[in-house]
Amino acid sequence: QSPCGNPVTDDVNDITKLVGNLPNDYRIALRYVQKMDTLPNHCWLHLMVPEFSKSLHNLLQKFSDMSDVLSNYSIINNLTRIINDIMSCLDSEKNKNFRKENLHLYEEGRFIPEEFFRYFNSTIEVYKDFAETSDHSDCVLP
Amino acid sequence: QSPCGNPVTDDVNDITKLVGNLPNDYRIALRYVQKMDTLPNHCWLHLMVPEFSKSLHNLLQKFSDMSDVLSNYSIINNLTRIINDIMSCLDSEKNKNFRKENLHLYEEGRFIPEEFFRYFNSTIEVYKDFAETSDHSDCVLP
Ligand SMILES: [Ca+2]
Repeated sequence: QSPCGNPVTDDVNDITKLVGNLPNDYRIALRYVQKMDTLPNHCWLHLMVPEFSKSLHNLLQKFSDMSDVLSNYSIINNLTRIINDIMSCLDSEKNKNFRKENLHLYEEGRFIPEEFFRYFNSTIEVYKDFAETSDHSDCVLP
Repeated sequence: QSPCGNPVTDDVNDITKLVGNLPNDYRIALRYVQKMDTLPNHCWLHLMVPEFSKSLHNLLQKFSDMSDVLSNYSIINNLTRIINDIMSCLDSEKNKNFRKENLHLYEEGRFIPEEFFRYFNSTIEVYKDFAETSDHSDCVLP
């Protein structure tokens, strides 16, 4: 049973259009943690989801909210809603502590749109796998 | 009589939407010449139009040509067509020489989208004034 309802809407289908509508040399800031054998995927998720939320929120501020079919603002807004729903669901004291204890694992990245959203998509895939399994072991320092 | 037909199409109405769909901290390179009392507006035009053509052409390459109602690519493509039509019309040996003799007047700028297209719009206005007058005196060094 998914612990989070269904936060991944079909708005993820608009990502290709968004990437085509962003300058391909524009840099999007994202703090990230490298995937590691010693770090279970769902623990990596606890570390990455809050960062994607921050980065997408910052990115949203760069555009105008136009009453248009599908502006960059509206697409980014929809993706932010998805990641925030996932974040609310993953939220717990245990996970907050795990993140606080592992701030040293973060690296500062600046990604072109294609890379940023490829990374975003893979995070969504990790979340989907997580939602399908029932093994949610505690996250401990790798 | 306009020497250039009507190169300014209503595609300029899409500029506001384009600016709202570009990151407001993205920098667009443009070589520019300050307006000067000693430089007649139509001479300033001969110096600026080729630079806008270059900058817009470079900007176009940053986006994907998506078969979408109004993507950034399609809007920039339309604006490039306008500026290139103006450029073909202004083109002459005399003007090419004037530009070559005044390369030292250019400054390298990097403008956020709002500034860049405000500058573009004012260039279009200068062109429209130029097209309405018949006084097209030779351009000489200021
Ligand atoms: Ca939707």
